[in-house]
Amino acid sequence: MAYGYWKHGLHERPAVFHQIFRKNPFKGNYAVAAGLQTVIDFLKDYHFSELDISYLSTLRTSNGGALFPPDFLHYLKKLRFSCDLDAVPEGTVVFPHEPLLRIKGPLIQGQLLETTLLNLVNFQTLIATKASRVREITGANEQILEFGMRRAQGPDGALSASRAAYIGGCDATSNVLAGKLFDIPVCGTHAHSWVTVFPDEQSAFSAYTKVMPQNCTLLVDTYDTIQGVKNAIETGKKLRDNGAELQAIRLDSGDLASLSILARELLDKAGFEDTKIIASNSLDEYAIADMKNKGAAVSIWGVGTNLVTAFDHPALDGVYKLSALQNEKGEWEYKIKISEQAVKVSNPGIYQIRRYLKHGVPLADMMFDEELGVTTPTSMLTIASPHTQIEIPEHDEARDVLVPVFRQGQCVMNIEPIQALRERSLKEVSAFRKGNGDEEYQVGLEDQLHQMKQALIAKVNSA
Amino acid sequence: MAYGYWKHGLHERPAVFHQIFRKNPFKGNYAVAAGLQTVIDFLKDYHFSELDISYLSTLRTSNGGALFPPDFLHYLKKLRFSCDLDAVPEGTVVFPHEPLLRIKGPLIQGQLLETTLLNLVNFQTLIATKASRVREITGANEQILEFGMRRAQGPDGALSASRAAYIGGCDATSNVLAGKLFDIPVCGTHAHSWVTVFPDEQSAFSAYTKVMPQNCTLLVDTYDTIQGVKNAIETGKKLRDNGAELQAIRLDSGDLASLSILARELLDKAGFEDTKIIASNSLDEYAIADMKNKGAAVSIWGVGTNLVTAFDHPALDGVYKLSALQNEKGEWEYKIKISEQAVKVSNPGIYQIRRYLKHGVPLADMMFDEELGVTTPTSMLTIASPHTQIEIPEHDEARDVLVPVFRQGQCVMNIEPIQALRERSLKEVSAFRKGNGDEEYQVGLEDQLHQMKQALIAKVNSA
Repeated sequence: MAYGYWKHGLHERPAVFHQIFRKNPFKGNYAVAAGLQTVIDFLKDYHFSELDISYLSTLRTSNGGALFPPDFLHYLKKLRFSCDLDAVPEGTVVFPHEPLLRIKGPLIQGQLLETTLLNLVNFQTLIATKASRVREITGANEQILEFGMRRAQGPDGALSASRAAYIGGCDATSNVLAGKLFDIPVCGTHAHSWVTVFPDEQSAFSAYTKVMPQNCTLLVDTYDTIQGVKNAIETGKKLRDNGAELQAIRLDSGDLASLSILARELLDKAGFEDTKIIASNSLDEYAIADMKNKGAAVSIWGVGTNLVTAFDHPALDGVYKLSALQNEKGEWEYKIKISEQAVKVSNPGIYQIRRYLKHGVPLADMMFDEELGVTTPTSMLTIASPHTQIEIPEHDEARDVLVPVFRQGQCVMNIEPIQALRERSLKEVSAFRKGNGDEEYQVGLEDQLHQMKQALIAKVNSA
Repeated sequence: MAYGYWKHGLHERPAVFHQIFRKNPFKGNYAVAAGLQTVIDFLKDYHFSELDISYLSTLRTSNGGALFPPDFLHYLKKLRFSCDLDAVPEGTVVFPHEPLLRIKGPLIQGQLLETTLLNLVNFQTLIATKASRVREITGANEQILEFGMRRAQGPDGALSASRAAYIGGCDATSNVLAGKLFDIPVCGTHAHSWVTVFPDEQSAFSAYTKVMPQNCTLLVDTYDTIQGVKNAIETGKKLRDNGAELQAIRLDSGDLASLSILARELLDKAGFEDTKIIASNSLDEYAIADMKNKGAAVSIWGVGTNLVTAFDHPALDGVYKLSALQNEKGEWEYKIKISEQAVKVSNPGIYQIRRYLKHGVPLADMMFDEELGVTTPTSMLTIASPHTQIEIPEHDEARDVLVPVFRQGQCVMNIEPIQALRERSLKEVSAFRKGNGDEEYQVGLEDQLHQMKQALIAKVNSA
């Protein structure tokens, strides 16, 4: 397609693409935007390498000719990112049909970036959302450790997931490389193999306290869990004699809820009230809620595979659509893709999201076209068909959610530390839940934008 | 744990770890091993960089002291991979409890590698298996194009998936970087945005033929699918006048089966019997089987999200267990991890898999211990409890499945071209299906190994 635009002289035409998702993941009613910093890092260094070009020159058409002529490859070699990018800051609560990214610039660039931008933002948004759901269940005071690397979808599936899970509300990761690259706290415990290396569990525990007296968490289920807890208590007593405290024990199999209750009793009776219990083994928001209902005495949750692969819904249904293109006269022409399903009809225009809040609580969002502006701020129209009116709620703040990230290829956004992104997501999800509960959040189209979209649909249908 | 082994002087003790999975993914009865070449590339360059070491030196214990002493970090800096690695060649059909990898070497190395090896092999094996399931449904003569990058789990989730999907039986990928890095055929079609760039569908199609006369596939559902097919036919006629042929049309929404039948009729009537129909949109083995039942006239399948994320089962449950460790006298001691579920009890020993075949068809596998050898080749015992005997089937070939990959840190395996791995998987799955159908494949433990395992369990339980 890039070659096609170039061949037809359309490649430098200013174009606007939006990246949206259509459905909230996990049967929830929100998503947490993530992945923008990864996008920024990618775009700052966007180029085709010599090796890329020479690979592309080897591709052939069905009759054996070169797929791409040298002139086009030369053009690619010189290509640098020169677009405007507006985006939703990471950690922001977002909803179906809202642009997470808006790219404005040469058609060829917007097109070439489609797949990469979708890949980076779809996945991290998915995982940040999953982590925030786990956080909603644990509450603010318990710890969530992300333990997912071994079954994540490739090395980067793990790295990106660790980053996004932290933004969504995890406290730490066991992925040390993610700790190094993204400044996330790292944390881990020993595995069963540590225990099996030694002649028996007691000597394995004892050996571990010598190594990690200040960070001692013992995994108690290698052989028999309750015996393991007892052995951990004996080890904790010796540790205490040496001036340190047993920080935690970890349960990794069996009926975690009832084992945690038994373990808590044993620990308390032995004077280890401050020793925490970590649970792990196929946990997610549902399993944790279930354990809490059963009175589990767990305050640290090790969440792995189900979080980092988003096991119950492993992909966000993000799409990336051309929504406007300048004609030869430099006027914007709005673009639409039709579908039998109203929800799949793309939204033409150059979008901004206006969020209405009261006391910091988001109440509804209105999407409007930046060129058309906003003229009827008392109501808006639903995206679904048939279209119904939504009143703009009483508010004390109207915030535009998309912020400038690149202008003509230069990054204009200050990099935020990842801790700030995490704090934003925790604050945003909690404010959202306060205002919204489990209902569908109201997102509408500004009236002129709605009319323009309907006119375009009519035009296509009559063609 | 690595630091602990080092501190206790256990780090150089020869140890054996096995990587296995416990359950076939996708409710199927086999898996296709993949990821070994990625493991080889990783191990060839295994080291801690200066930056890694300086990051590790910043980590702190709970009382603010350094987590790792400088001596240990110095040891890590000098560390190079020096183990023996045996592995199942990529593309081989494998079954629960069989080691995909066996690492023999210093305890600290086996331990440090655990998470990375699990990550690399779990995911690629999962995706190769998924792709092979899709291939089983399409049969050998149809094409499967992997289109998954935009919703894959991170950039590497996409890259690894493209590689594994090709090994499992896909014909090509739309991921150009995967094409470049792994020598996989690349292939793509235009998107809806191409069509919306032009004033109408007919002019968009016509423009595309000028760009790709020899590789012309037209996406026909941007506005109205049947009208799109008719426009494609008109375009195909002009293309034919210019000496080229319309290769294919693509359907990407709606009722793909019935639309493909209608499209086929229209194409055939207009003299385009050789123009193929590509279908895409949330396809997987189930959707394709359903379409085939409905008589879909599709011969090329674009499979994306559901393949590259293994949507219905997005993680293989691989584990990595210490199974043997030398004592101070240099004798092997076998190691076991107990669980209430027999299937989760680890398998002690140093394993090889012997596969019994007749006329190239695999009939059963026996796992045996390399030190104990094989003394009773007439029967073996099931892994599940209670243990029952399995007769060794009549066979004309007994093949040991694990092959040497590294010896003392040096790669001793010839690198196979990825095409050979793909051919192996196609051949292996087809031979497996011929011998086995939908039943569970027989995998047993050699008798001495079984007895040794039971003795270890008894010893642990009596401790």
